[in-house]
Amino acid sequence: MIGVGIIGYGYWGPNLVRNFFETPGCRVVSVADLRAERLAKVTPRYPTVETTTNVDDVLRDPRIDAIAIATPVSSHFDLAMRALAAGKHVFVEKPMTADPEQAQRLVDEAERRGLVLAVDHTFVHTAAVRKIRELTDTGQLGDIYYYDSVRINLGLFQHDVSVIWDLAVHDLSIMDYVLREQPVAVSASGIGHVPGQPEDMAYVTLHFDTSLMAHVHVNWLAPVKVRRTLIGGSRKMIVYDDLEPSEKIKVYDKGITINGDHATGANGNGNGNGHRHALLVGYRAGDVWSPQLELTEALSVEIKDFLGAIERNAQPIVDGHAGLRVVRLLDAATESLRAMGRPIELSSNRCSV
Amino acid sequence: MIGVGIIGYGYWGPNLVRNFFETPGCRVVSVADLRAERLAKVTPRYPTVETTTNVDDVLRDPRIDAIAIATPVSSHFDLAMRALAAGKHVFVEKPMTADPEQAQRLVDEAERRGLVLAVDHTFVHTAAVRKIRELTDTGQLGDIYYYDSVRINLGLFQHDVSVIWDLAVHDLSIMDYVLREQPVAVSASGIGHVPGQPEDMAYVTLHFDTSLMAHVHVNWLAPVKVRRTLIGGSRKMIVYDDLEPSEKIKVYDKGITINGDHATGANGNGNGNGHRHALLVGYRAGDVWSPQLELTEALSVEIKDFLGAIERNAQPIVDGHAGLRVVRLLDAATESLRAMGRPIELSSNRCSV
Amino acid sequence: MIGVGIIGYGYWGPNLVRNFFETPGCRVVSVADLRAERLAKVTPRYPTVETTTNVDDVLRDPRIDAIAIATPVSSHFDLAMRALAAGKHVFVEKPMTADPEQAQRLVDEAERRGLVLAVDHTFVHTAAVRKIRELTDTGQLGDIYYYDSVRINLGLFQHDVSVIWDLAVHDLSIMDYVLREQPVAVSASGIGHVPGQPEDMAYVTLHFDTSLMAHVHVNWLAPVKVRRTLIGGSRKMIVYDDLEPSEKIKVYDKGITINGDHATGANGNGNGNGHRHALLVGYRAGDVWSPQLELTEALSVEIKDFLGAIERNAQPIVDGHAGLRVVRLLDAATESLRAMGRPIELSSNRCSV
Amino acid sequence: MIGVGIIGYGYWGPNLVRNFFETPGCRVVSVADLRAERLAKVTPRYPTVETTTNVDDVLRDPRIDAIAIATPVSSHFDLAMRALAAGKHVFVEKPMTADPEQAQRLVDEAERRGLVLAVDHTFVHTAAVRKIRELTDTGQLGDIYYYDSVRINLGLFQHDVSVIWDLAVHDLSIMDYVLREQPVAVSASGIGHVPGQPEDMAYVTLHFDTSLMAHVHVNWLAPVKVRRTLIGGSRKMIVYDDLEPSEKIKVYDKGITINGDHATGANGNGNGNGHRHALLVGYRAGDVWSPQLELTEALSVEIKDFLGAIERNAQPIVDGHAGLRVVRLLDAATESLRAMGRPIELSSNRCSV
Repeated sequence: MIGVGIIGYGYWGPNLVRNFFETPGCRVVSVADLRAERLAKVTPRYPTVETTTNVDDVLRDPRIDAIAIATPVSSHFDLAMRALAAGKHVFVEKPMTADPEQAQRLVDEAERRGLVLAVDHTFVHTAAVRKIRELTDTGQLGDIYYYDSVRINLGLFQHDVSVIWDLAVHDLSIMDYVLREQPVAVSASGIGHVPGQPEDMAYVTLHFDTSLMAHVHVNWLAPVKVRRTLIGGSRKMIVYDDLEPSEKIKVYDKGITINGDHATGANGNGNGNGHRHALLVGYRAGDVWSPQLELTEALSVEIKDFLGAIERNAQPIVDGHAGLRVVRLLDAATESLRAMGRPIELSSNRCSV
Repeated sequence: MIGVGIIGYGYWGPNLVRNFFETPGCRVVSVADLRAERLAKVTPRYPTVETTTNVDDVLRDPRIDAIAIATPVSSHFDLAMRALAAGKHVFVEKPMTADPEQAQRLVDEAERRGLVLAVDHTFVHTAAVRKIRELTDTGQLGDIYYYDSVRINLGLFQHDVSVIWDLAVHDLSIMDYVLREQPVAVSASGIGHVPGQPEDMAYVTLHFDTSLMAHVHVNWLAPVKVRRTLIGGSRKMIVYDDLEPSEKIKVYDKGITINGDHATGANGNGNGNGHRHALLVGYRAGDVWSPQLELTEALSVEIKDFLGAIERNAQPIVDGHAGLRVVRLLDAATESLRAMGRPIELSSNRCSV
Repeated sequence: MIGVGIIGYGYWGPNLVRNFFETPGCRVVSVADLRAERLAKVTPRYPTVETTTNVDDVLRDPRIDAIAIATPVSSHFDLAMRALAAGKHVFVEKPMTADPEQAQRLVDEAERRGLVLAVDHTFVHTAAVRKIRELTDTGQLGDIYYYDSVRINLGLFQHDVSVIWDLAVHDLSIMDYVLREQPVAVSASGIGHVPGQPEDMAYVTLHFDTSLMAHVHVNWLAPVKVRRTLIGGSRKMIVYDDLEPSEKIKVYDKGITINGDHATGANGNGNGNGHRHALLVGYRAGDVWSPQLELTEALSVEIKDFLGAIERNAQPIVDGHAGLRVVRLLDAATESLRAMGRPIELSSNRCSV
Repeated sequence: MIGVGIIGYGYWGPNLVRNFFETPGCRVVSVADLRAERLAKVTPRYPTVETTTNVDDVLRDPRIDAIAIATPVSSHFDLAMRALAAGKHVFVEKPMTADPEQAQRLVDEAERRGLVLAVDHTFVHTAAVRKIRELTDTGQLGDIYYYDSVRINLGLFQHDVSVIWDLAVHDLSIMDYVLREQPVAVSASGIGHVPGQPEDMAYVTLHFDTSLMAHVHVNWLAPVKVRRTLIGGSRKMIVYDDLEPSEKIKVYDKGITINGDHATGANGNGNGNGHRHALLVGYRAGDVWSPQLELTEALSVEIKDFLGAIERNAQPIVDGHAGLRVVRLLDAATESLRAMGRPIELSSNRCSV
C-alpha cells in the first residue's frame, strides 16, 4: 500500500485527490494547501484524509511514499526537490518546472536516488492520444509530414505564465509522445493584449531535420473553442478533434501519389514559354475510419502507471526526461517569441535526449 | 462600349470571359491562348467572340480598350507591360507579378499613362469580405487584435509557385483590404514533401507595430478542406467560414473586460509566496449574430468596378498599389521561409504605401 | 425554513438532493429508498441528512413540509396521494402519473387541501426554453406554424415504459409551456425491436384546430444523439439544438411572404393547358441571431419556484394541471400507437384545460 | 445510335438534354417546349439540336426512338401514353403520373408493346444510394429496423402538388430501391400555410408487416436545409447526409445486444414492488466507417442504364413497376393526410408488386 500526499488543492488538486483515492494499491494520507478554506472542502468528502497548511507535514510524513504536486509552476522545482530529498517519489503537474535547468536537476536527483519522477502530461494518457500513437507506431500513417494543432478559446486564467506555457504545453507533450522525433529549432510569435499580462495568443513552429514540421496555435482570446489537431502522413492522415463527443479521431485514407516518371507539367500556360518536366503528383481519396475509443479517464490511467512504476521500480510513461524535453521547448519558444519569431536552435546540450 | 480582350483560357479564363460577356457596357472582342484545343471551347458558347493563339492579335487590336490577363504568374509582368504600352487598361490575375520590382514598374507605367490597372483579388469583392470591412470600418469590432486564417485542402495543382503564392495570397489580399494597416515584418515557415516541387504547406505571420497580429496557415496536403478566418477585436469577434452555405459570417459579442483597479490576483498558490497585484480581467459573452449576405458573384462585382474605373477615370477598388503590397508580402514571406522563419522587416522602401 | 423529504435515490434522486441541499430556505431532512446500498451513498456526502428504507418515515415526519418523489412512474400516484393525505406539498417526477385519471385525482386532492403540487418538467426551466417562450410570447415569431422535435440516441434504459413516456414527455412538456395551445387530436406510430419490451422508437403528431402542427420523433436505437427542435413562425423561425455547447438557440429571420394579388403561376408548363391564377409566394432570408443564455441549472430554478410557491401559497410554473395535460397526451399517443396511427381525439373531458 | 427527343425545357429539362448530349450511343434530335423563350436557350448551346413548340413534332419524328418527358406531373400520363402509342421508349420524370391508375396503364401499355419505360428516380442512381443498397443487400446491416428521413428547406416552388409529391417522392423511391419490402399501410399528416396552396409540410409513416418502420419528414418552410436519412439495422446503422461534401455515408457499428437469460431488471425502484425478470439489453459501440463514393453524376448513370435497356431489350433499374409502386404510396399518403393521419391500407390490388 503506497502512502500518497498531495500538495496543492486549487484547480487540479481535487482531481488528483479523487483519482488517487479511487485507485487500489495506494492510500491518500494527507493534503496540503496554504489556504485553509480550500482544505475545508477535503474533510467532508474524504473523512479519512488529513489536511495541513504546512507543506513540511507532508514532506516529513513517514507514512507517505509518494507526493503529487499541483501548485503554480514557479513552486514546482522547490517542492519536487524537497520531496526527492525526503526520499519521496514525485508526480508533478505540467509544466514540470519554470526552466530547463531546474528540470535537469530534478531528473538528476531522482536518478541519483532511484526515485520515480513522473510528470502529469495528462493528454498522453487519453484513449485518443494512445490510439494515435498506436497508429503512428505501427506505420499506418507512413512518414509523418506534419502535426498541426489549434487549441483556442475565450479564457485568460493564467497571470503568471503565457498562453504557451498554459496551452501549448499540451501539444508539445502529445507530440513528444507520439512523434518520437526531437525538433532542431523552434520559432514562436505571440502578443498580449492586456497591459502587464503575459502573451494571450501565440504560434509555435517546430523545425525538424526530417520532412516533418509541427505547428501549434494557442489563444485565450478566441470567440470559439477549438481543440483540433491534424496529423498528415504519407499513407494516411488523422483529424483529432477533442471536442467531439464521439468520433474524436478520424483516419483519412488520403494523400498524394508521386510518379517517378518525368512528364509534361499539367498547368499549361496561356502565354507561356513551353513545357516543363515535372513529377506527376496524383491524389488518393479513400475511406474514412473513426476507431471506437476506450472510455477511460486519462488521469486514472496515469496514476496507475505512476504507482506501477513505483512498485516495479521502473520508468513511468511520462518520466522526468519527457518533462525536461517539453520544458526545453517551452523555454526556447519563449525566447523566440521575444525575438519576433527568430528560430532558436535546440543544440545538443539543450536537448540531450 | 468598352472592348475587352482576354489572354489565357485555362482554369480561370473561362470565368473571366463569362463575366465580361454578361456585364453590360463592355464587349468581349477576342480571347487568346497558346493552346488551340482550349480556344475550341470558346466558339460554341460565344459565337461572336474571336479567338487567337497569337497574343499580339489581342495586344494590337484597336477595338480592344482593356485586357484581362489570366496566365501563369511568371508571364503577368511581360503581358501586362505590353498591354499598358499598347495603351490598354489592364485587369491582371493575382498574384500581380512574380516579384515586387515588376509590380512597382507596372504601377509606375499605368500611372504614367493614365491607364487603369486592376488586380484580381477576387475575395475582396465577395459579400462576406465586404461585410467584414463594413464591420471593421464602422468600429463595431473595436481595436483589431488578430487576424487568423486557415486555408487548407488536399490538392497540389501548382508546380511553379509555392502554396504561399497560391493560397496565402487570398488572405493577404483580404487583410490588405480589411485591416488597412501595413505589417512591419513577416516571418514564414514551410516545407515541401514532393522532391523538386515547391512548398506544399506553410505558416505566415505578419507583425505590426500595433496590438495587431496576423497569421495564415496554408496547406495542399490536408485531409479536410477548411476556409476559416477568425478576427478578434476589443469589442467583438468574427468567425468567417467560407465553406458554410449560409451563415458565412458570425459576429460574437465576446471579449475581455479590463478593470484598472489593482487587486489581488485570482490564481492563488498552494505553496505560494503571497499575493500579487494584477489587473482584473473579466470576460464578456453576449449574443451571436450572423448577417444575411448579398447573393452577388464576386467576379461580377469586380468587373463592374474595373469597367466603372475606366469610364470615370478613377481607381479601382483593388489597384496596382494593392497588388504591389501583396506581392511584397509574398516575396518577404518566401525569403523568411527559406531562412527557417527569420523575420523579414518590411522597410519603408519595401512597403511604401 | 421548509423541511424537505426525498423519496427515491436512483438515477434522478441524487440531483434532487443536491439541489434542495444547496437551495437556501429549505432543509433536506431525510431520504428514503428501498435499497440500503443506495442510501449508503447519502451519508458521506450529506452527514446531516437522515436515511430510511421505510417510506412511511418520510411521509409521517412532522419536520417535513414538502416531499419530492423520484421513483418509477408506476409508483408516483400512490406516493403522491399518500404525501398529500399527510398534508405535504409534492414535487413529482415526470411523467406525473401512469394515466390521466390518477393525475386528475392528484390535482383534485392538492386543490382540496390547498397544497402545492409541482411536476418536474425540467426542460421548461432551462434558459433555452424560457428564452423560446419569451420569443413566442412577445410575438417575435408571429403565428406559430409548427413545432418539430427530434430526440434520439442509443440507449434503452427503460423497461417499464415506452420511448414515448421516456423521451417524448420532454417535448410535450416544452410545447405545453411554450405554445399555450391545446391539441385536438394525437396520432402516433411506433415499434419495438426487443421481444417483450416496450416500443423503442415512435413518431407522435399533434393536431390543432389552428395553422399549427407539432411532431416529435423519439428513438432509443439511433446511431447518433440528436436533440433538435425547429419552431416555424410566420415572422421568424427557431432552431433549438440542446447539444450545442453554446448557441443552443438560433433565431432565423426567414419565412414566406404572400402577395394577395392574383397572378400568373410561375411554374410554366411544357405541355401545358394554359395559365393559372395563384398567390405570389416569396421568400425572406435575413439575419440569424443567437441570443446569449443564462448559465443557470434548470433544476435549481425549478426548486426555487416550488419553494416560492409554498411560501407565497401560489401556483408553481409547472403545476398539476400541466402535468395532467401532458399525461393525457402521452396516454392518447399510446392509444394511437396501438392502432397504427389512428388519430385519437382529445375530447373536452379528456383535455379540460 | 438511339435517337432521343426531350419534351419540356423548364427546370429539369436542360439537365436531361446535357446528359443525353454527352452520352455516347445516342443523339438528341429535338427538344419541345410550349415556350419559345426557353427553346431559344437550346440552339446556342446545342446547334445541332432542333427545337419545336409543337410536341407532335417530337412524337411523330421517325428519327426519334426514345422520348424523355420533363413536364409538370399532370401531363406525364398523356405525353407518355402518346409516346408509347407512337412506338417510342419512354423516360419520364418523377413522380411517374398523377395517380396509380395512370401509372398502371402506362406499365401495361409499355409491356404490351415491348417498349422500355423508365422513371427518373434520380437519387436511386447516386453513388451514395447505390452504396447503401450494397450494404443492405450483403447483409452488413442485419435486419432493417427503420428508415427515417428528413428532407426540409425553405422553398415553396410547387403550386400544383403538395410537398409529399415534390419531396417525399425522393425518399419513397430510395426506399423502394434499398429496402425491397412493400409497406402494408401508410399514414400521413400535413398542413398548408398559404391559402389555396397545397400542403407545405408533412410527415409520412410507412407500416410494414415486419420489424421495419419508415418515416419521412418533408417541409418547404424550414429555416435550415436538411437532407438526412438514418437507417437502423440489427448489426449496423447508417447516417446518410446528402449535404455533406464528402463523407455522405457513415456506417456505425452500433446496436443492441439481447441476452436471452432472464435477469433482474436494472432499473431498481425506490418505492417498488420488488424485482422483475427482463431480457438483458446491452449496447454495442464500435468503429465508424465512411466509405469513399464514386464521383459519378446520377443522371448520367441513369441515362446509360436507360439506353442500355433499350439496346439489350431489358428492364431499366427503375422501371414502370417501381414508378407505379411509388405513385401508389404518394396517393395513399395523400388520402391519409386528408383524414388526419388515418392509416390507409395498401391492399393487394393497390400494391400488386
